[in-house]
Amino acid sequence: MTLHPPSADFLDALRERLGPQGVREAGDSAPYLSEPRDLWQGEAALILRPGSAEEVAALLKTCAEARVAVIPHAGGTGLVGGQVRPEGPTGVLLSVERLNRVRQVAPEDDAMIVEAGVILAEAQRQAEAVDRLFPLSIAAEGSARIGGVLGTNAGGVQVLRYGMARDLVLGVEAALPDGSIHRGLKLLRKDNTGYDLRHLLIGSEGTLGVITAAALRLFPRPRETATAFVAVAGPSAALDLLHGLRAALGETISAFELIKDAGVGFALAHVPGVRAPFTPMPGWSVLVEAGGPEGMGERLEAGLAEAFDRGEAQDAVIAASEAQRQEMWRLRESLPEANRKVGSIASHDVSAPMSRVAAFIDEAETTLARIAPELRTNCFGHLGDGNLHYNVFPPEGRRREEFANVKGEITRVVHDLIDAHGGSISAEHGIGRLKREDFARYGDPAKIAAMRAIKAALDPAGIMNPGAVLP
Amino acid sequence: MTLHPPSADFLDALRERLGPQGVREAGDSAPYLSEPRDLWQGEAALILRPGSAEEVAALLKTCAEARVAVIPHAGGTGLVGGQVRPEGPTGVLLSVERLNRVRQVAPEDDAMIVEAGVILAEAQRQAEAVDRLFPLSIAAEGSARIGGVLGTNAGGVQVLRYGMARDLVLGVEAALPDGSIHRGLKLLRKDNTGYDLRHLLIGSEGTLGVITAAALRLFPRPRETATAFVAVAGPSAALDLLHGLRAALGETISAFELIKDAGVGFALAHVPGVRAPFTPMPGWSVLVEAGGPEGMGERLEAGLAEAFDRGEAQDAVIAASEAQRQEMWRLRESLPEANRKVGSIASHDVSAPMSRVAAFIDEAETTLARIAPELRTNCFGHLGDGNLHYNVFPPEGRRREEFANVKGEITRVVHDLIDAHGGSISAEHGIGRLKREDFARYGDPAKIAAMRAIKAALDPAGIMNPGAVLP
Repeated sequence: MTLHPPSADFLDALRERLGPQGVREAGDSAPYLSEPRDLWQGEAALILRPGSAEEVAALLKTCAEARVAVIPHAGGTGLVGGQVRPEGPTGVLLSVERLNRVRQVAPEDDAMIVEAGVILAEAQRQAEAVDRLFPLSIAAEGSARIGGVLGTNAGGVQVLRYGMARDLVLGVEAALPDGSIHRGLKLLRKDNTGYDLRHLLIGSEGTLGVITAAALRLFPRPRETATAFVAVAGPSAALDLLHGLRAALGETISAFELIKDAGVGFALAHVPGVRAPFTPMPGWSVLVEAGGPEGMGERLEAGLAEAFDRGEAQDAVIAASEAQRQEMWRLRESLPEANRKVGSIASHDVSAPMSRVAAFIDEAETTLARIAPELRTNCFGHLGDGNLHYNVFPPEGRRREEFANVKGEITRVVHDLIDAHGGSISAEHGIGRLKREDFARYGDPAKIAAMRAIKAALDPAGIMNPGAVLP
Repeated sequence: MTLHPPSADFLDALRERLGPQGVREAGDSAPYLSEPRDLWQGEAALILRPGSAEEVAALLKTCAEARVAVIPHAGGTGLVGGQVRPEGPTGVLLSVERLNRVRQVAPEDDAMIVEAGVILAEAQRQAEAVDRLFPLSIAAEGSARIGGVLGTNAGGVQVLRYGMARDLVLGVEAALPDGSIHRGLKLLRKDNTGYDLRHLLIGSEGTLGVITAAALRLFPRPRETATAFVAVAGPSAALDLLHGLRAALGETISAFELIKDAGVGFALAHVPGVRAPFTPMPGWSVLVEAGGPEGMGERLEAGLAEAFDRGEAQDAVIAASEAQRQEMWRLRESLPEANRKVGSIASHDVSAPMSRVAAFIDEAETTLARIAPELRTNCFGHLGDGNLHYNVFPPEGRRREEFANVKGEITRVVHDLIDAHGGSISAEHGIGRLKREDFARYGDPAKIAAMRAIKAALDPAGIMNPGAVLP
């Protein structure tokens, strides 16, 4: 299907239809056309800001008939370029920011219905206000919007216990390219009626339709939260510690974050207000958090004591106050910022089966040393999910620009290795435009063929976010 | 697409290709062609028993080329006729029973890989052998096979805590009608690479392809399990009790089964060895179970004490031994059998938002009385999931055959009402052939249109289980 740039008349008709609130001119639209890593600059002939699911659906139909590309846009915080489209022919950008109502908060159903433009942190607050927990928590939660969070199936720090974004959704309302609206906002835990369109749309990165609202699962708020920093001998010991603690504490463990000393060093040097839990920092440590009924603190302490006896833990600091807990999280959450300030040559969001993480880290170190012996690595991540953010830095005192010529080679080594360990080249960020070619290389061919068939079936004109995801 | 009955030559070629182990003649094939409710008698020209995913894929391709219908078959325990096909033109049945290997048990990854023919109870045992829990538990677990459990997205008694079948799957291997094999058996918690084909295939009831193996999630085994029978004032009080206990005990509550006195009466009269926890039985009671770290029994007792103070519970028996716990579950698990023995006029597997369950039960009673004043109802189910098995019986001393003429009307009343409460006409059994017309009536039109498009895209010849699911 050939796409066309929109004609002046086409754009005028959209301006008239949506009114002054409903559009922004492309000239004033820098925030819609950039992305956090500055790898791409998007293009769009007009920014559409529809105010209802019905308006979204009608716009998709109009654009499909005219064969004009539509780039769905929510909070703009995605890290793989799914929300910006530099490729031609120029299309229109469709922002869900005006779909920002909390339609229903139903604590008695442990659920709420929010529109796609609602900020994630606002959704968390709405849940808290009725003594419930919406557990999805990511670094960008202050600006990420629900539509983008679901479009990319975001992950974050509580996946171990509560699952990915998709696992927190009971149903969605979505506008489809044929102008129809899938009305699936039921507050049901169980609904075995037909194919699971919800899970097909979630994580499809705006290439099949536009999620306009979602029914979200809420959870009981843990009565007590216990947090500790634990020094471990290495990633392998950290995994033993995880299994040991899970045997003792069950699924109450909500976070299990592996941290390397290099990352702590970066944070201490580059992010104000960060403090280290140990002096000196051990080579590897873990931030662990558990939440549940009263007595969690004692249970975590007892679990850690057993872990010492088994040799899984070497030292531990348990947060004695909310302020100490915040300080521990402040260190963890400063790691991405510190990495950006140091300036990585290449960064990777990968996952492996938990049992292969330690081997992956070892082998990656060895293999990367062959490219340049003094490369520094920092990896941190959600060990309980097998998810590592694996970043490679220039040697001390050198600039990353000097290594631009080996950036591709570094990523190839990391992705080859994670693939060999049965892992994924995109654990939680998605494919977008950044990993499209790598998806073609490492992805399952039968799956990619099925995706193409599904895409052609639901979006025959190919207007939805062309250039993203599909190789 | 027109389907054809297989020619004699076609069948001979399949017999030769698969060998004597690989086929059964239709004449000896009663167990493949019947189903538990005896509502349909299936037809098939030949029973295919392939021994590998590759064989399954090749068979699908062969049948697609010849336009011969394929009915996938696993344990044959489905309750909506998805596994039997009475409609013509005659096709072939494809049993996954020879795909029965446990390929990998990986406690360190909290995962295992099993083939589609593995019996559910065997999968549970394999997990237990490595001190892990595979929590899916349904009445038919002794004969249901993983392929069918996933094809229908089975539910069961632990959904409240662990989710539906789909929530327990990390990835699938599946043969598709074009002869390709989707190889998605990664042991990953996080893998954001492209559309979620896993969730599309799970619950599609064999209409898109054949799941040949699955990577399943395992959980820590609870160190202590506490079980109680609680007398409540009614469904509304039961919901308050659930929220009260969840606030105190968090997600450790794994079962919360609502039981009506009528059901207990049926069980005492018709199932040997059943004992009632209370004499006399209260109008409504709840079987609650929680599992977690040591001390669960005390925590459940404390939670129930608080519930008494709030008026949510009226009486309670806590199981003091494993034998008492088994006795409580024996009562719960005898309810379907007792219902069958009494002989319902119509049975329904419905769900509603938790907060609407009590109103639904009240209104259904009133509305059904208009059809025939002395109809008896029994409902039992998973209140924490809003899932009710709602069964309607003839008045005492009358036979159900006398009410055959109002069976359709009863189901219409129940389904209209559940739909009006934002519920589902199929909570956990699926659509199959039983609910195809009701799905057309109550289903979301945009979703049904999208399903048709997806079906045509992945199965253009329409060979996969034609007549099931899609209206």
